[in-house]
Amino acid sequence: MTPEEFRKYGKQVVDWVADYLSTIEWYPVRSQSQPGEVRAALPAHPPEHGEPFERVLADLENTILPGVTHWQHPSFFAYFPANTSGPGILGDLLSAGLGVQGMVWATSPACTELETLVVDWLAELLGLPDHFRTDARGGGVIQDSASSASLVAVLAALQRASGGKVRADGVAGRYPVYVSSQTHSALEKAARIAGIGANNVRVVDVEPGTLTMDPAHLERLVAEDVAAGAVPALVCATVGTTSTTAVDPVARIGEICRAHGIWLHVDAAYAGVAAVCPELRWLNDGVAEYADSYATNPHKWLLTNFDCDVLWLADRAPMIDALSILPEFLRNSASESGDVIDYRDWQVPLGRRFRALKLWSVIRWYGAEGLRAHIRRGIGLAEEFAVLVRADSRFELREHHPFGLVCFRPLWTGMSADDANEATLAMLERLNDSGALYLSHTKVDGQVLLRMAIGAPSTERSHVVEAWERIRAQLP
Amino acid sequence: MTPEEFRKYGKQVVDWVADYLSTIEWYPVRSQSQPGEVRAALPAHPPEHGEPFERVLADLENTILPGVTHWQHPSFFAYFPANTSGPGILGDLLSAGLGVQGMVWATSPACTELETLVVDWLAELLGLPDHFRTDARGGGVIQDSASSASLVAVLAALQRASGGKVRADGVAGRYPVYVSSQTHSALEKAARIAGIGANNVRVVDVEPGTLTMDPAHLERLVAEDVAAGAVPALVCATVGTTSTTAVDPVARIGEICRAHGIWLHVDAAYAGVAAVCPELRWLNDGVAEYADSYATNPHKWLLTNFDCDVLWLADRAPMIDALSILPEFLRNSASESGDVIDYRDWQVPLGRRFRALKLWSVIRWYGAEGLRAHIRRGIGLAEEFAVLVRADSRFELREHHPFGLVCFRPLWTGMSADDANEATLAMLERLNDSGALYLSHTKVDGQVLLRMAIGAPSTERSHVVEAWERIRAQLP
Repeated sequence: MTPEEFRKYGKQVVDWVADYLSTIEWYPVRSQSQPGEVRAALPAHPPEHGEPFERVLADLENTILPGVTHWQHPSFFAYFPANTSGPGILGDLLSAGLGVQGMVWATSPACTELETLVVDWLAELLGLPDHFRTDARGGGVIQDSASSASLVAVLAALQRASGGKVRADGVAGRYPVYVSSQTHSALEKAARIAGIGANNVRVVDVEPGTLTMDPAHLERLVAEDVAAGAVPALVCATVGTTSTTAVDPVARIGEICRAHGIWLHVDAAYAGVAAVCPELRWLNDGVAEYADSYATNPHKWLLTNFDCDVLWLADRAPMIDALSILPEFLRNSASESGDVIDYRDWQVPLGRRFRALKLWSVIRWYGAEGLRAHIRRGIGLAEEFAVLVRADSRFELREHHPFGLVCFRPLWTGMSADDANEATLAMLERLNDSGALYLSHTKVDGQVLLRMAIGAPSTERSHVVEAWERIRAQLP
Repeated sequence: MTPEEFRKYGKQVVDWVADYLSTIEWYPVRSQSQPGEVRAALPAHPPEHGEPFERVLADLENTILPGVTHWQHPSFFAYFPANTSGPGILGDLLSAGLGVQGMVWATSPACTELETLVVDWLAELLGLPDHFRTDARGGGVIQDSASSASLVAVLAALQRASGGKVRADGVAGRYPVYVSSQTHSALEKAARIAGIGANNVRVVDVEPGTLTMDPAHLERLVAEDVAAGAVPALVCATVGTTSTTAVDPVARIGEICRAHGIWLHVDAAYAGVAAVCPELRWLNDGVAEYADSYATNPHKWLLTNFDCDVLWLADRAPMIDALSILPEFLRNSASESGDVIDYRDWQVPLGRRFRALKLWSVIRWYGAEGLRAHIRRGIGLAEEFAVLVRADSRFELREHHPFGLVCFRPLWTGMSADDANEATLAMLERLNDSGALYLSHTKVDGQVLLRMAIGAPSTERSHVVEAWERIRAQLP
């Protein structure tokens, strides 16, 4: 495709995306496609001859879209938001157009330097400590996801806990990792990938009610493991759990970590970005004092399309020790001078796209005040939704909803707990099948709760009110 | 940004990218930026108020571009190609615009089903065996990079070698991984990440001259390790090494793997895509019979912008056993039915973009014949370059160049080996400093070789000839 053909088709695709975003409400939120349906509608074999791009767009419209669940729909309230935005999409388009590789500084200096700048900008916007800055001992890096950030944290922690031995000898010995029952499954996955094993993922109790990690139980488990000869490697504290946005007591957990020399990773994948608002900075209490690493996802609630997780470290040395490797073909004088950052040593893959462009575009287009307004709007709508639920005696509201997620459940009077759960799940399926909105669920203390996660930039008050009308209409 | 603002700025960005691609030859190929220069030219703090997108584009032009090494430049001959193309960029733009999450089938069915289709298409285009197809026991999946593909292969291999024990207990015991000195460093990195340890990465000798793995030495190392109580986990054979595009004897290595029950991973990151041409299918000799996993990168030489590696497996079960985990919030009836693929269990991260769109766009726009023409063009230009080098007695040509890479060196008469290497590296720096072209280097048998990697879609015969003129002008 020549640059002039790209110019022509590029404008068609921009129009297609603009049209899609303006008419997204016409689509059912959740795809109504059955397994195999999309694939069966497409040619089983690749074309021998090239086709005009118009045919790709036609198939996209007619065959792919019916199989798409519209995560950018204003009535998408499932899981967590996966914000995109115009400047985020354009930043990604620039990255694809430039097509550079940022594996080391020398392979495209601006790719690394813009990244160090924007992760420092974001640390400042979130009120994170100065030692997370790239010009200090720590530093930030864009990862594809909080899962990968957790894995990098686990690898750095293992490196430190073993005094560097695992790099050479592997995981010989027990290096437990501590999570709560509410911690994201990514931590267990990371521990398995790192060779620690699922049995060495110790599950700390949560406080009844708040579902936050119980520091006293953590302390007991650590003591038990130390007595048994294990070397505790990492504790993961979560700020805004996936299930109910519970906020673990980071400072109290941090004290235990410090006493035992354990790496403290703070997973703030969803909620961390809310700290752009000064009134929400409490969510990071204890982070400055105790966190060895911290991750949050601008690709969830900060208008930056996937993939964009930012991982910060208080000290980058153990991570680099764990991950660095220097083949001959990447030797260069800039790396040898020590004056530059080579992000290859901050992540699992070697290659990397110019992802900083999209975060840079987003921060510049919205400015700090625009980002704060976006977060406050989501929280405001969640609060309005909570007021509606609270006012209806047929529902029980979970009162903890400091961010954009509201958990609640219908009170099915006269039903057993199991029957009530089944009735709630059946109601959820009916709602989602309608195509008018999309919610997800969680389970707390044996009870199925509905999760209403608000935070898409397209979501207006009317969508939230309409969702509530549809939900309450499900009950007699 | 409203959809209408996106429409307006989107077209500006498309024009910007089209202009950039049409004028890319005006830029020095390798950035001439010094460490810290780009960052110092940008504001140290994030903006409080939003800015017009025009200012982002102005800074891109004036501040970012001077720090960019132009990987899409027709005179970029360093490393390996990192092809982008119009349809690839547009596919990525569609992915960003849709903003869907494909972590499991249920979160956006088309995202998974188009991926199963295009990886099957690509397997067919490359003549890979039917058991790699997603409707068989194996299947393909898009990964961000060959590094991540190698890690997934190592994890699946560990799962199988340990009879599933590592998942629960971690890497207790020695599970060696076998590479050659020419294997990509990603394998050692994967082995370290997986908890195997660098000391359990056994380096098999290569044959002098061809630099291909010596099967007899592999056999001896395996026997030694087994006798010492270790459990050999994986052998990595490379088709097209990073240094010189050597092709390991996959079938002979495969026989040893089969005899000892060792997982055979074939890393064809660069060269694998060349098998779109029937006359190059020999590169996959032995793959159908012996490979447990196979990876190649359409983002290197097949016109699909980064990130797009495809990993295939002969049997997906050990990988899924190694990586699967099912939190409550992702439970859904489609997954429970077993009728669908959940790609979350085929990769390190949980979240995933709709990357199949770009590979689909590329295959449809070019068709099989267009892809073959692209590969043949690169090989043809490399052959022409080799003819020029061969004809000049001041240079030594490395005669192995079946793909787009030509390795050669100036014969510095009357110099010691060390001095000759230094002179070659100094000459390389002068050439790259000129901005007119960009080459990289490797080291073989103590000799520094220049690497001329041809394969960008924008590279014409004139660029190759001009590069040669500049290179030979460096010698007296």
